[in-house]
Amino acid sequence: MKIGITGTGSYIPSIVTKNEDFLEHDFLADDGSSFGVDNSIIIEKFKSITGIAERRYAQPNLNTSDLGYLAAEKAIEDANIDKEQLDYIIFAHNFGDLTPGKIQGDTLPSLATRVKHLLKIKNPKCVAYDMIFGCPGWIEGVIQATAFIRSGMAKKCLVIGGETLSRVIDEHDRDSMIYSDGAGAAVIEGEASGEILSHASVTHANGEAYFLFFDKTYNEEGCSDTRYIKMHGRKIYEFACTYVPKAMADCLDESGVGIDQIKKIFIHQANEKMDEAIIKRFYRIYGKEAPVDIMPMSIHKLGNSSVATIPTLFDLVRKEELEGHNINKGDVVIFASVGAGMNINAFVYRY
Amino acid sequence: MKIGITGTGSYIPSIVTKNEDFLEHDFLADDGSSFGVDNSIIIEKFKSITGIAERRYAQPNLNTSDLGYLAAEKAIEDANIDKEQLDYIIFAHNFGDLTPGKIQGDTLPSLATRVKHLLKIKNPKCVAYDMIFGCPGWIEGVIQATAFIRSGMAKKCLVIGGETLSRVIDEHDRDSMIYSDGAGAAVIEGEASGEILSHASVTHANGEAYFLFFDKTYNEEGCSDTRYIKMHGRKIYEFACTYVPKAMADCLDESGVGIDQIKKIFIHQANEKMDEAIIKRFYRIYGKEAPVDIMPMSIHKLGNSSVATIPTLFDLVRKEELEGHNINKGDVVIFASVGAGMNINAFVYRY
Repeated sequence: MKIGITGTGSYIPSIVTKNEDFLEHDFLADDGSSFGVDNSIIIEKFKSITGIAERRYAQPNLNTSDLGYLAAEKAIEDANIDKEQLDYIIFAHNFGDLTPGKIQGDTLPSLATRVKHLLKIKNPKCVAYDMIFGCPGWIEGVIQATAFIRSGMAKKCLVIGGETLSRVIDEHDRDSMIYSDGAGAAVIEGEASGEILSHASVTHANGEAYFLFFDKTYNEEGCSDTRYIKMHGRKIYEFACTYVPKAMADCLDESGVGIDQIKKIFIHQANEKMDEAIIKRFYRIYGKEAPVDIMPMSIHKLGNSSVATIPTLFDLVRKEELEGHNINKGDVVIFASVGAGMNINAFVYRY
Repeated sequence: MKIGITGTGSYIPSIVTKNEDFLEHDFLADDGSSFGVDNSIIIEKFKSITGIAERRYAQPNLNTSDLGYLAAEKAIEDANIDKEQLDYIIFAHNFGDLTPGKIQGDTLPSLATRVKHLLKIKNPKCVAYDMIFGCPGWIEGVIQATAFIRSGMAKKCLVIGGETLSRVIDEHDRDSMIYSDGAGAAVIEGEASGEILSHASVTHANGEAYFLFFDKTYNEEGCSDTRYIKMHGRKIYEFACTYVPKAMADCLDESGVGIDQIKKIFIHQANEKMDEAIIKRFYRIYGKEAPVDIMPMSIHKLGNSSVATIPTLFDLVRKEELEGHNINKGDVVIFASVGAGMNINAFVYRY
C-alpha cells in the first residue's frame, strides 16, 4: 500500500522579532558573567552561524494548541477529506500549552484533544494523542501514522507539530535568539499518490541524553525554580554532523533510490551552518558534492520552531511560497530531523 | 501473529499516606468557601465512594522517570530478554518529571529517553518516545506497540506508565486525596504465548474535553499562576458509566470471546464506586450479573496513580501479590481505562 501525504497546512505567527530587537538584552554566559562585548557583535556572530535574521512569535492569546489547530484546519482542507473520517490526531510538541507569563506547561487535556475540540470533530473513533520526541516529533508522528495505516488500524491520520518556544526561553541566554513559534500539519493516508519509501529513527541516550535540557536562567538574580530550554550547542553540532548523515544514508539506501535522484532535502531548521555541514557530509558518503538548491531554508525569516519547522517548510515549498524552490509529482525528497533525546529520524518520499 | 505481554514490573513508592493524614488540611469548595463540616466527615464520605484508605507517594529524590525506570527494569528481567533488543520504549505520562516544590514539569529530554539512559541501553535503534493520553496512556501505549509489531517495525517494545500526581495536586481540594504516585511497565512481543485478541480506543472531545483540566488552587490567597489537576467529578462519573461499558462491549464483541469466558477485568483504579458501576453496566449489556471477584482492586491501598494503575494491578495479580486474585495460562481478561481527553480504551487478552 502506498502511504503518503495528501494535504499540508501551516500557521506562521504574526509577530516578527528581528535580531535588532535583542540589542538591549542583558546576555550572560552560563556562569552568570558578562561577555564584555557589545550585543551587536554577539548578534552578528549568531546570524553568521545560524542564518537567522528574524523569527516569529505567537500573539499572546494563541497557545501551541491554537497554532496546531490553525495549521490542521488548512491541512484538512488541502487534503480535501471529511474531518470526521480521521482515525488519528497526533500532536508532536515538547512543552504543552504555554500561557505567556505563566511558567507551567499545560497538557491536561492533551493538545491533540484540544485540536479535536476546536475542529469540532464528533466521531469518537478519531483517537487524539500527544507525542514527545524532541524536534524530530513531527517526522516521528508521520512514522507512527504509517504504522497505524500499515497494520490496518487507520486509514487517515492528521499529524501536527506545534510549539511556542518563545515562552520557554531565558532572555539572558544568547541561544534564546534561535527559537521561535509555529505549527505545521499534514494528512497521511493509505492509497495516496505520493509514497513514503523508507524511514529510520534512532535515539542516542547515553552521553547524549542531556545535550538539550531544562535549567535555570543564567541570571543569578533570576528565579532558580523557573527553568528554560538550555543546550550544549557545540556538542549538538558535533553529534548532528556525525550521526544525521549516516541515518539519512541508511534511510536512502533502504528506499532503493539513488542519491542522484534526490530533488530536495527538507531538514530541521536548527542552524544554517549545521544543516549545510550535515548535507555536505551526507553527499560525501556517496562521493558527491551537495547540489545547489537541494536544501530549502526557512530559518532566515522563521527561526527554529522545533517540531514545526519541517511541516511548515514542506507546506511552503509545495505551495510555491518559498522563493526559488518547488517540487513536482514524482520527485523524490528526503525529510530529516535531529533534536532532544537525542533523536534523529528521516523518511524518503516520492512526491 | 500472536502479540502478547511477556513480562511485567511495577514500582510502588514507599511513602504511605493514610486518610488520617488529611485531617488537618484546609479543604475548600471551588469558590474558596469552607465546607463547614469536620474533615473527618469529608474523609469518611471520600472513602465510602472511592474506596481509598491510603495511597503511596514517591520519595522526594525520585522523579516519574525514576519510577518508570525501576518498573521497567523488573519488566525486562521478567520477560527474560536482552534489553538491547528492545525496538521501542514508550513512556505514557501526563505531567513530565516533577521536582517537589517546583511547579514546572520537565520533558526535556523525554522521560522515555531518561529511562533508556538509566537502563544503559546502547542500541540507537531502540526508539524512545513519550505519549500523553490521560489515564488510559499505558493501554494506548500497548496498542501502539501492537501496531509497530504488526506492521513489521518492531519485535519487542517496552511500555511504561508512570506518574507522580502527589506533586500536581491542590492541597485545598478534597479531590487531592484521590491521587497517588507509581509506575508499571510491560514488555510486548510478537510470537508471545499470550495474545491481544482485540482493542478499542475513543476520544470524546466535544463537551467532554475539559472534564479534567489544569487550574489554580481553591485557596484565594494561593498563587493564581500555579495550576493543579482539577476535575468535574460528577460529570466524569456519568460520562464513564455511560461510555466505558459500551467501549468494553465493542472490544469484547470484536474479540469473538463470550462474556462468560472473562476471568478478570483490569480496570483503571479511579474510584471504587465508579468502577463497580461500570462493571455492573457492562454485564447488564449482556443481560448478566457481574461475577464476584471479577475485578481486582488495588485502589484501597494505592490510590489513583493515573497511567500506572493498570500495569501495576496486572503485575500484582500475575505475581500473586494481590490477595484473592490470580490468573492462569489461557484465561481471557479485559483491560479498560478512562481519563483525561476524555479518552477510553480497552483490550481483550488471552493470558
